[in-house]
Amino acid sequence: MLQRMLTEIRVAGFGGQGVILAAAVIGKAAAIFQGGHAAMTQNFGPEARGGSSSAQVILSTEPILYPYITQPDVLVVMSQEAYATFAPQVKRGGILIIERELVHVDRIPNGVRAFGVPATRLAEELGRKVVLNIVMVGFFGAVTNLLDAGALRQAVEDSVPPAMRKLNLEAFDKGFEYGATLMTRIAENGEAEGVLTLEVEA
Amino acid sequence: MLQRMLTEIRVAGFGGQGVILAAAVIGKAAAIFQGGHAAMTQNFGPEARGGSSSAQVILSTEPILYPYITQPDVLVVMSQEAYATFAPQVKRGGILIIERELVHVDRIPNGVRAFGVPATRLAEELGRKVVLNIVMVGFFGAVTNLLDAGALRQAVEDSVPPAMRKLNLEAFDKGFEYGATLMTRIAENGEAEGVLTLEVEA
Repeated sequence: MLQRMLTEIRVAGFGGQGVILAAAVIGKAAAIFQGGHAAMTQNFGPEARGGSSSAQVILSTEPILYPYITQPDVLVVMSQEAYATFAPQVKRGGILIIERELVHVDRIPNGVRAFGVPATRLAEELGRKVVLNIVMVGFFGAVTNLLDAGALRQAVEDSVPPAMRKLNLEAFDKGFEYGATLMTRIAENGEAEGVLTLEVEA
Repeated sequence: MLQRMLTEIRVAGFGGQGVILAAAVIGKAAAIFQGGHAAMTQNFGPEARGGSSSAQVILSTEPILYPYITQPDVLVVMSQEAYATFAPQVKRGGILIIERELVHVDRIPNGVRAFGVPATRLAEELGRKVVLNIVMVGFFGAVTNLLDAGALRQAVEDSVPPAMRKLNLEAFDKGFEYGATLMTRIAENGEAEGVLTLEVEA
């Protein structure tokens, strides 16, 4: 089901952006709708003072005994501070996913591919900035191709209150379509606006 | 800061009820606003199929090396299924907190104190059933007295989008006041409507 035996993902941003829900949706999609295992962990400490928020998700083909990660395969960031803190930790060959209106990228780690999405603006087009986290999840789905799009979409539906389902599914679709269009352009042209860099070699 | 060195809490209910957010608020209050350590973990597996949701929080005076729990000190349940699954695991001397309109209590484990709150109805009085999870957090705060009420309230404020803060703080206050009134009645009379049982000895 997963491209690797173990995939480590970090989602990070401000408190109130829905970082934990985004991480939980990814874990749920992998485990419940694709038959794998997943653990989501959030550690709270003094470093979280000041309003930052960060959650870790591990996707695995085996049961997960130790849920902490240090070097993510995929990093999803929604704030400049989160980018500054966690971008240097992404593994070589990993993927960096950025809310491109909230994060200014100064330097991409060696061997990491970075992709940006204007998730806040796409969420605002739906009338509710609050769903920017689910736009990011949709974009994550299209760009990483780690999980089945239908499983991710189902996990969104299952993770929000009934009255919020339609809005969140629209947000997911908007992020996914943006990512799918971007990946098609990359395949055709080798480059596109949302790609911050395809790969920077050491 | 905490009454014990290590306190294990489980929050469980349906998907979409905001189980994870409730757990995260508790962890954040302990760690960020009271200077302790906290870890929140959610494991996803086939057992979560069918829409149940469960999160674990560990509060500690020391860094947390192993974030999993088997026997919670405090269990907060918002569905009958969650009650049936997790109530038998609560430690002797532990506390069971129940959404009393969603959970019918048939048998309370030995040595466990159980308290109920009509959180759905209190949330509906605010016009938004969606905040029932934060009503539960407020009630949890008043009943357990594990965490400073101001720290919990601040964690609610920091964990939701700006546009949702007022509503969620009202929900917190409503749950807290319900719990505080209940505890006062218990202190005065030794019994009250929300107390499902004070203590059942073996």
